[in-house]
Amino acid sequence: MRDVAIIGVGHTKFGRLKDKNFMDLLIESSIQAIDESNTSENDYDAVYVASMCPGEFCQMTGVASALVDRINLIPAAADHIKNGPASGGSAIKNAFYAIASGLCDLILVTGGEKMTHITIPGFVTSAVATITHHSAERIHGVSLPSFAGLLTRAYLDKYNAKIEWLDSIAIKNHKNGALNPYAHFQRDIEGFMKRAIEKGRGNWNNVNEYLRDLKSNPIIADPLQLFHICPISDGAASVVLCPADQAKNYCDTPIKISGVGQATDTHIIYEREDMTVLDALQICSKQAYEMAKKGPMDMDVAELHDAFAILEAVQSEDMGFFKKGEGAKAAAEGKTEIGGEIPINPSGGLKARGHPLGATGVAQVVELVWQLRGEAGKRQVEGAKSGITCNFGGFGNNIISILTERM
Amino acid sequence: MRDVAIIGVGHTKFGRLKDKNFMDLLIESSIQAIDESNTSENDYDAVYVASMCPGEFCQMTGVASALVDRINLIPAAADHIKNGPASGGSAIKNAFYAIASGLCDLILVTGGEKMTHITIPGFVTSAVATITHHSAERIHGVSLPSFAGLLTRAYLDKYNAKIEWLDSIAIKNHKNGALNPYAHFQRDIEGFMKRAIEKGRGNWNNVNEYLRDLKSNPIIADPLQLFHICPISDGAASVVLCPADQAKNYCDTPIKISGVGQATDTHIIYEREDMTVLDALQICSKQAYEMAKKGPMDMDVAELHDAFAILEAVQSEDMGFFKKGEGAKAAAEGKTEIGGEIPINPSGGLKARGHPLGATGVAQVVELVWQLRGEAGKRQVEGAKSGITCNFGGFGNNIISILTERM
Repeated sequence: MRDVAIIGVGHTKFGRLKDKNFMDLLIESSIQAIDESNTSENDYDAVYVASMCPGEFCQMTGVASALVDRINLIPAAADHIKNGPASGGSAIKNAFYAIASGLCDLILVTGGEKMTHITIPGFVTSAVATITHHSAERIHGVSLPSFAGLLTRAYLDKYNAKIEWLDSIAIKNHKNGALNPYAHFQRDIEGFMKRAIEKGRGNWNNVNEYLRDLKSNPIIADPLQLFHICPISDGAASVVLCPADQAKNYCDTPIKISGVGQATDTHIIYEREDMTVLDALQICSKQAYEMAKKGPMDMDVAELHDAFAILEAVQSEDMGFFKKGEGAKAAAEGKTEIGGEIPINPSGGLKARGHPLGATGVAQVVELVWQLRGEAGKRQVEGAKSGITCNFGGFGNNIISILTERM
Repeated sequence: MRDVAIIGVGHTKFGRLKDKNFMDLLIESSIQAIDESNTSENDYDAVYVASMCPGEFCQMTGVASALVDRINLIPAAADHIKNGPASGGSAIKNAFYAIASGLCDLILVTGGEKMTHITIPGFVTSAVATITHHSAERIHGVSLPSFAGLLTRAYLDKYNAKIEWLDSIAIKNHKNGALNPYAHFQRDIEGFMKRAIEKGRGNWNNVNEYLRDLKSNPIIADPLQLFHICPISDGAASVVLCPADQAKNYCDTPIKISGVGQATDTHIIYEREDMTVLDALQICSKQAYEMAKKGPMDMDVAELHDAFAILEAVQSEDMGFFKKGEGAKAAAEGKTEIGGEIPINPSGGLKARGHPLGATGVAQVVELVWQLRGEAGKRQVEGAKSGITCNFGGFGNNIISILTERM
């Protein structure tokens, strides 16, 4: 196989983007990445689009063919890759294979989703729940937030953990998001809560009381509250890939994709021995580490899939950063902050950057590229040389890790 | 890159399969292919699922992760590849890259669609029309059959062709389908019409009068009539791929994938200079021929995408079998029959085998495998050594060709 590098990235603002439709978003980030990589429209072999539900949300199919047309890359090949909220990771993986094989030399990967225009209550959550097992789970009304509630309860019980530790993950990610100009939410919520307390806006004496108040922080899926859960967002992100040995022809600071892993687990969650252990993540992160000849202790930064705060805690364990049961506590102790032992989600993560489903896996890699190039501004992890992602499909039944390094 | 071979295939009956849901179909063809290839469940690196609209038709997302679970291939990687009616070709292409790269050694590709359970009038045609350009085409009510009607009219006018020549394509494909135990329709419609004429069931003196009678053969999209158009079908098909140099470890008659091409064209059809010329097919078939170091005259058999009879005629020209404007006439002269110059769609094609959207591109390759192995029974093309496909996405804006050979 040939080594593969990232030579350009694009990223729209994430959020409630009323003036932009699905295709606008894909085009915007794609053109940024093409421009940044100094590539010519004529040289592209293929385009991969990652999106979970453009048919359901925007009545669009054939979205990759449509994008190739809009950005003038005809006759480049075009495929749409779907793997639920891990579609972005899957699209990068397939582009990586195509370059590694020697059959393609230049590929654009764009992930995106348009969600906030949907006004039917529950429509988005129901559409996402089509990823669960239909006869064992979905017909009983299970949704992804409800699984996250179950997982949180199991984790708190098993490891004698505290819900406040999960609060700290959300607070940290919002703090990081406040430093990310592309984030959906750019407000430091700890400061926001403290000001509300000072101004006597409620009957709270401290942040913990604010967070336990079910009026200011409603229950979504007991014991998960609003502040533990990522938003519904619009947005897109892009990367341009080429063979590593050609990367310097295009840009001065290419970033190498040195490890890629993907693994699946049981579709039905009750078939897993222990819900708090993500077998698929242990397997796929090991694949990525081994391909890159690195280990978790070599990582300087990680972008994890904190659709729910509990997921960041569990993922940080199954990727080898902390022992089982210690991820949430480590976050509460500041070990995952920028400047901590292993900075997690300097971008703000899904919680603050937002979670346009198909965009997320690509946006994670874009953040790593910025971090490894030293271009992450106020949220820069100093001297970061290696980073890894966890992009989480289904409820842990299809996970992808991508490991990137400075060249 | 490494050479890639097909070591096992699977194919459900296509048709109106009331007793089988979407997942049943994927499982059935997958298990056939796994069994036939003498592979172990533990050895699979990845599964690719091709399906156009499982979200819209069956309210299912994450279909690849679901399949991996059902057929016991966990923790193999799993991705869902979408490219409209060319999803099957795209899935095989991506699996081909993954094996060629050296990063995967054993991959299952399964394409499938469940469509006939949908009872809302126009729902399927509308869902498929989401692949057209939304502001230039779809909002005006354009559907894929209407484009096929336009193309037919343009072709008949430009090349002074006769609608009867297109009839002959449908008649030939039904004749072939009658020899294919997996086909949706297994009736020789020429014989059927002749018997109806003999029995005086209508006011016809010959087959041509039968076919021009708008009661027996209604207009769908003028000048296309019912008999020129493929059905809506349920079904699935599978192939198992491995490196060519390992293929004989699994089976005695591996078939090599020696060429793969994919190309795109304008999304809006009126932006093409000449609707009767499929630029994307000329490009992608050339890519496949060049990769395989072969030309159209080396092909012994071809599986084309006759969703509408006109498409088989035009495709047979743009792939180099006939000069522009001569494809329909060549079919009428019997040149594309089994035993003719270049047998096209010995399987029955989309017209008779049926067209479960995501399954079609995989089923085309399965038919080539059977033909090249000499296992095609009564529809065998004698001595076939090389074959090629055309899998047609959108309305010609994303086309894939896969070239296979005996090893």
